[in-house]
Order: sequence, then structure tokens, then C-alpha cells
Amino acid sequence: MKPVCLIIGAGAGIGGNVGKRFAAAGYHVVLCRRSDEEGLQAMVRDIEAAGGSASGRLLNAATEDSIEECVAAVEAEHGPIEVALYNLGAQIGNRSLEETSYKAFELGWRLGTFGLFRLASVLCPLMAQRCKGSILVTSATAAVRGNAGQHSHAAAMGGRRMLCQTLNAQYASQGVHVAHILVDGAVDAPDTLGKMLGAEAFQALRDAPDYNLMQPSEMAETYFHIAHQHRSAWTHELDLRAHSDVAWWNHA
Amino acid sequence: MKPVCLIIGAGAGIGGNVGKRFAAAGYHVVLCRRSDEEGLQAMVRDIEAAGGSASGRLLNAATEDSIEECVAAVEAEHGPIEVALYNLGAQIGNRSLEETSYKAFELGWRLGTFGLFRLASVLCPLMAQRCKGSILVTSATAAVRGNAGQHSHAAAMGGRRMLCQTLNAQYASQGVHVAHILVDGAVDAPDTLGKMLGAEAFQALRDAPDYNLMQPSEMAETYFHIAHQHRSAWTHELDLRAHSDVAWWNHA
Amino acid sequence: MKPVCLIIGAGAGIGGNVGKRFAAAGYHVVLCRRSDEEGLQAMVRDIEAAGGSASGRLLNAATEDSIEECVAAVEAEHGPIEVALYNLGAQIGNRSLEETSYKAFELGWRLGTFGLFRLASVLCPLMAQRCKGSILVTSATAAVRGNAGQHSHAAAMGGRRMLCQTLNAQYASQGVHVAHILVDGAVDAPDTLGKMLGAEAFQALRDAPDYNLMQPSEMAETYFHIAHQHRSAWTHELDLRAHSDVAWWNHA
Amino acid sequence: MKPVCLIIGAGAGIGGNVGKRFAAAGYHVVLCRRSDEEGLQAMVRDIEAAGGSASGRLLNAATEDSIEECVAAVEAEHGPIEVALYNLGAQIGNRSLEETSYKAFELGWRLGTFGLFRLASVLCPLMAQRCKGSILVTSATAAVRGNAGQHSHAAAMGGRRMLCQTLNAQYASQGVHVAHILVDGAVDAPDTLGKMLGAEAFQALRDAPDYNLMQPSEMAETYFHIAHQHRSAWTHELDLRAHSDVAWWNHA
Repeated sequence: MKPVCLIIGAGAGIGGNVGKRFAAAGYHVVLCRRSDEEGLQAMVRDIEAAGGSASGRLLNAATEDSIEECVAAVEAEHGPIEVALYNLGAQIGNRSLEETSYKAFELGWRLGTFGLFRLASVLCPLMAQRCKGSILVTSATAAVRGNAGQHSHAAAMGGRRMLCQTLNAQYASQGVHVAHILVDGAVDAPDTLGKMLGAEAFQALRDAPDYNLMQPSEMAETYFHIAHQHRSAWTHELDLRAHSDVAWWNHA
Repeated sequence: MKPVCLIIGAGAGIGGNVGKRFAAAGYHVVLCRRSDEEGLQAMVRDIEAAGGSASGRLLNAATEDSIEECVAAVEAEHGPIEVALYNLGAQIGNRSLEETSYKAFELGWRLGTFGLFRLASVLCPLMAQRCKGSILVTSATAAVRGNAGQHSHAAAMGGRRMLCQTLNAQYASQGVHVAHILVDGAVDAPDTLGKMLGAEAFQALRDAPDYNLMQPSEMAETYFHIAHQHRSAWTHELDLRAHSDVAWWNHA
Repeated sequence: MKPVCLIIGAGAGIGGNVGKRFAAAGYHVVLCRRSDEEGLQAMVRDIEAAGGSASGRLLNAATEDSIEECVAAVEAEHGPIEVALYNLGAQIGNRSLEETSYKAFELGWRLGTFGLFRLASVLCPLMAQRCKGSILVTSATAAVRGNAGQHSHAAAMGGRRMLCQTLNAQYASQGVHVAHILVDGAVDAPDTLGKMLGAEAFQALRDAPDYNLMQPSEMAETYFHIAHQHRSAWTHELDLRAHSDVAWWNHA
Repeated sequence: MKPVCLIIGAGAGIGGNVGKRFAAAGYHVVLCRRSDEEGLQAMVRDIEAAGGSASGRLLNAATEDSIEECVAAVEAEHGPIEVALYNLGAQIGNRSLEETSYKAFELGWRLGTFGLFRLASVLCPLMAQRCKGSILVTSATAAVRGNAGQHSHAAAMGGRRMLCQTLNAQYASQGVHVAHILVDGAVDAPDTLGKMLGAEAFQALRDAPDYNLMQPSEMAETYFHIAHQHRSAWTHELDLRAHSDVAWWNHA
């Protein structure tokens, strides 16, 4: 039976590419996203065409019991989840405080922080019983600095980072590895960045020399590496950015 | 008309003592706490007996519209709020992930992060219009490191800290000063620590030589100082701990 | 006998103004700077004209035994040093790696890190014997992030911050308070910023509305406050910046 | 011609194992250490016996021009250095301030900070010309927190971390990748930890179940991965610790 890799937030950027990477290494990959059943099935077929094994599930992480049922169903159908990627963002663009509704702020928390808590609540005990498992968490610069207009996003990501630490503090010694992966730059992701920028601006970024955009297929190599570190040498926090970009702590 | 200082979370520890300090300096202080009308009125009388001006309000910050109505009522009755202290904790003691219910985790966020967002949403625009105001935010070590058993608390406080940064990023240049005050130790607070430890253990800590407990009346001096810094020299983040204690980044 | 405040790095910016503030509160202030005996004596006279007590010493902190002899002489002449301000900068402007000579890098360390170590080596044991003393350390954003061109400065300041932590770790419980004060912005200091920018550009900054420059006389209030915190509530790290400025962790 | 990997600080722990890992991947590895020519040649023979290519050099990094001459000689003899590992520690055990001599503090800086600056000064411009190169820097928890007794070590490592940031800020966009690898735990290294602890205590740690010691051969996998990240997805800072250990930011 293949080891299982669960991807929560499987678009054409990080999520989908991490899925491909694990499938290429022999995992059965379960791709979950909120909508676009067709796109989801296309990703499954791509992986299968490359000789891998995958399945897709529509999942609205904001809905009660959705993540919990997903984990249970995946374990029942496909076997123990060895790796889970929590890849849901909570970025809503820059909005002033006046433009940030209570509802938006709460939704940021529901997807950014609470969803990971729910995933961990059902998955960590299972992984701990098996003394084996990795939870990879895509995070953002907003987890470590709160920029103007990022009220909702930064609060959600700041909570996400601290939660990763408390999870490790409880579970690392039981064999569960939680990694906080701080993505400090724009990713070449048509589903998210592409839609936010519009087709033209996105293509301009893609066409720029010297990788102004982070390549999710390359990022996936690091995600894969982190999930396979020996337990005597685990990374809990790391950053990723394009070489041509300025680190968040520097000014241009 | 006296300048107004609003204290959200006015127990016998930091909240009450910061109230006394501002009252002693000529502010009208509005003390808010969830329960114990008698204790609240006793604090008001103490301040008045010392020649100060104060009033008390029962406030359940977890309730819809409570903070918003409080701010509106205080401004209507007493005048512009120049200083607000957000002093609600979200500490529920150390609990494993299995013992941390979704409800507890959500309540942590409601009091720890969302309550501050709601306060800021109503108060920052008012302060910005007046080009004057300070929001002092009591925070905890859990805002910067997630210890075992602190899933709810650390996620809430991590969000709180990032929110303070985004508020400053938007409002500092408009004259609104938000300060994140990281309390890195146990406070001599009968209402919270006292109840958590029980009378005997609490008294033992109080009787220990060399200040094992932080004195809230002394902490209040720093809160007062921060609220009165000249706008060319504002502190956004600082820590406070007893000299006899070990900083969170050190091991004993 | 007056308590003594020793200022290492007493120009017309932070150093001189902190000196004035402590003198106004009854300290005998010893002002040390590398050169300009006349300017030094003028600062002493200013303090005396305001009713304070001060003396001046020329001190080349890069010279062997200079700091050590200064501490010994000041204690012999004026009595126990209760507060010391280490206010020597190590900023040499932005220089590429190729333009940063080994000599410049080493000098950065000598003034930025080693000088504080030398001061602490002679002063902390004295203060610990007396169970009383504060060492205020002016630091810079470069202590927490390394920007382009700051090779020498950032390495020196990063070392300075860690040293402040190790000093507190050993000495705080013995009554010695070391505070790392991160100055995150340009200070209205004719001796340093003024010379770096030239008269015209400096005046333009000074004339700008809304405090583009930090006022050292106002910063001195916070230095004074920190040195007088009750030992149950000490701050080890804090930042200072103009309200109109962008915090180092934010981008403009 | 094989790509060259230069290891400065090649003992039986991280340095030697990183060397083996790169040799196994086809690099010519140059192992440098201060003393023990025999041990050095044994490491070279081990690599060669496994089918790899290596050479050894005695190098006293504290000596003037030693690192500079080493880089020049290696490039002349073996070709362009594609990866360099700066693996010199500056740990001298816990010493109180009184026990930390000026000489010890300066030596800490010479090995901990200045040696990396010297390496970078000669190597970064070469790598930048070739638009290709990685400098891996082994660092320690002391780079981010100053514990009691770590005056020398923490000051040196704090400077080291900031220097890594300034190097990246200047060189990353030119294709030079500097990675700060924070080793947050004890490494199974006979040459350093083994000697510090003594044979018996060291063996006890090694015999303990569940990896109380970090395995340098496993750590080497992460070093290798970081040096081969695609330039659209570089990690600048990461941590490593045994799963059974407590992260530096947590308390046991």
C-alpha cells in the first residue's frame, strides 16, 4: 500500500506541484480544493499520466467537519496519511482597517489558523500513534511582520506560526514533524497570483528574466526534502524566496 | 474635561493598577470587567478616595457589539478616549491538543485577537481624526513562542502581536500609538494568577524574597510612560519581567 | 554624594541629551567623547548653567585600557556609577563588501561589540556587588536585520544585542539591568547625522513637518524611565522610532 | 573538471560528513582543519575509498591571510569553488563574565565572525562573477539568544547571523546563495562534543534511545539540499534539531 500524502489547498501553484512531487516518489496523493471539480480531475489525470497515483476531493475548509471527515475518509480509503500539506492561504489583498469587515477578519482566522488547528486535532494523534508523520505548513511573511493593510492576513498567519510551534512542542518527540515554511515572495501560481494580478501583469512577471516569480515545482523539492529529513535533524522553520528578491527584513 | 483612559480587563492586577496610575495623573478612568460589579465599584471608590475620577462598566468582550457600544458610550458620556488598555488575557493553562476543544480555541481567538481588532476598528478612526491616542496592549510570551500546551493561547497571542504591527503600520503616522507590551513572567494579580494557583501557593510566591512576582503597580509606571512618549520617539514593542526571572529566550 | 551617570559617546544627540536628563534629576553626569574638548566643556557648562552637575573626559574607546581606566577614575573621583550609557555607534554608511576593509570591519567590532564587553567586564561586577546599576545600550536596527552595505555595522550590532542578552542572563538577578534600546530611525544629532548628510540636507530634514527626525531630548525621557524601572518590572529590549516613520519590519 | 566544495572546519562531525555527501555527488572536496594531519588524510582516504575525490589542507583560520591563501590555492589547483561550508565554531563552554578574558572574547569573534567575513570577501566576488555559488554557514542557537555564560559565543554568532544577511542582501541577486543553518542541539561529533564531554558521557548520549544526538551524516543531507535549491526558491535561514529535543524557544 502506498504512503498517503494529503494536500489541502491543491491549486496550480504550490499545492499541485507538491502533489506531483510526492506522487513521483511513490505516494498516493489526495488533492483537495474548494471548487473546480474539472481542474481537480485534470490534475489527477496529469499525475496518473506521469505514472503516479492520485485522487481528488472537493473540500470547503471553512465548513464544519469538512477537514475532519476528509481525514477520516482518506485514511479509510487510502491508508495512513504520512504527509499532509496545509496550503490554504488567507490573503485578501491590502485593505485598510475600515475596509476589513469583521467577517473578513474572522474568515482569515478560520482558514489561516483554525483550519490548521482542526487538521492537527484529528491528524496529530493518528500520526503520534504511528510514531510517524509530517505536517507541512505553507506560511507567509505576514506570519512574522504585520504590514499596512494586512490586518486580517497577518493576525491569521501570526497565529498559524505560533500554532506550528505548539504542535511541535507537543508532538515532535512522538515522531510528528511540523514544518513552518515561510514563503517570502510571489509564486508563479495562475490560480491565486494570476487571478489577483490579471492575465497581462501576471504574464509580464512570468516573462521577466531572472525569476521574479518563485517556481512552485522547484519549491516542491524543498517541501519534499523537509518531509523526509531524518528525525535526528528536523527543520521546524525555514524561509523560501527567489534569489532576485529582497528578503522581508531588508528594504529595497 | 479630563482626558479619558479606557481599561478593558480591569482586575486587581495590571488593569486596575494602570487605571489608578492614569487617574492619579488626572485622567478619568473607565474600568471594564466581565463580572463582579461589587469589586468594580470598590475599585472606583478606591480611585475616588485617592482624589481621582473613575467609573466602572461590566463588559463581556466576547458578546457581539459589547466593545463597540462601550466605546461609543464612554465617548458620549466622558469625552474622547485618549488612552485605551486592552488587557484581556486568553490563558487557559497548559492543555494538550486533545484537551483543547474547538470551542476553547475559538474563545482564545475571540478574546485574544478578535476583541482587539474590534476595539481598534471603532477606536483607531476616532483617534486618527483627533490625531491623538494610544492603545496599550498587554501581551504575553506566547505571542513570540509557542510552548507545549499553549495551542490556544499562543495562536491567539501570535495573532495579537501581528495585529498590533498592522495597526501601527496604518495609524502611527496619523498620531495613533499602539504598543505591544510583552509581559514575560507571573504578575502579582489575585484575580487571575491567585485564582489559578490557589491561595496558599499564591501567598508563597508573594512572600518569596526578591520579587518572584511582577508588581502591577510598578508595571503601570511603564504603561503610563509609553502612553506619554513624544511622537518623535515611540516604542512599539517592549518586554517586562522581574529581574529575578529568566527571560523567555533563556533557559534556567 | 550624587549618584553617577557615565555617558560613553556624549555628542549633541542621544548621549548629550541623556546626560542632561540625568543631571536634571540629580545625577552627577560624566560625559565622555573621543575628541572636541571645547564642545565637551560647553556641554558641561550647559548642564551646570541649568543647575546640574557634570564633568567631561576625552576617551578613545578603541584604545587599550581606556574604558577600564575611565570607569576606575570616575568611581574614584565621583563615586559609584549607578547608570552607564554605552552610546558609541559603529555606522560607517553603506559600503559594498569590496569597499569594506578588514580594518573597517574590525573597528566596527571594536566599537560596536568589544567596547561594550570591556565596559561590562569592569562595571558589572561593581554593580553586582552593590546590587544596583543600569547599563543602557543604544543600538540600531542593524542589530536585528542585515541590510545591503551594512556588513560591518550589522555584524557589530548583532553581536552587541546578543551580548546584552548574555549580560542580563548573568547579572539581572544580581540587580544589574542591561537594556538594549533599538533606535530605528534617524536622530536629530548634528554631530553624527548632521555631518553625514551635510548642513543643507540635514536642515531640510529638521524643517520637515511631523518629526522626520527623532528628538534626542525626548528619547532621553525613555532612557531615563528604563533606568528607573522597579526591579520587578524591567524591560530588556525595546524599540524607538518617530511616529511618522516606517518600522524596520515594514516596507514603505 | 569536478565542481569544488571547500569545507572550512572539517572534523568528524558536520564538516566531514558534509564533505562525504558532496564527494558522493561528484564534487571534489577540499577538507580544511587546523591540526591533525593524520586524521585529515584518513578522511581523504575514506572519501577516495568510497569512489570520491578529496584533498586535505591544514588551515589555521585565525592566522592572517590563511583563509585568503587557501581559497586562492584551491581555485588554482582544483577549479572554481561552487560550494563553501564555513563550519568553524566558537563555543568555549559556559563561562561567567569574570572568566571570559578579552583574549577569549576576541578569539570568539575572529573565528565566529571575522573568519566568515574574510572568506566572503575573497569568495563572494569570484562566485558573483560566475553567477553561481553557495556559502553554507553552520551556526548555533547562540546566534539568536544569549544565554548565561555565552558572552563570547553569542556575540560572535549574533554577528555571524547578521553578516549572513548582509551578504545575501548584496549577493543573492548575483547568484550567490548564503544560508544560515542554525544547529539547535548537540551533534554526534567525537572531535568537539566528544572531547568536551569526555568519552564516557559522550558514549552514554550516543547509546540513548531516540537520537539525543543529531546525526551529522543526516544533517549533511539538508546541507546538500540547501546548496542545490533552484534559484527561484532559496532558503536563507533554517534550523535543525533532533525530534526528541526541545526547540530553543521552548522550555523543557
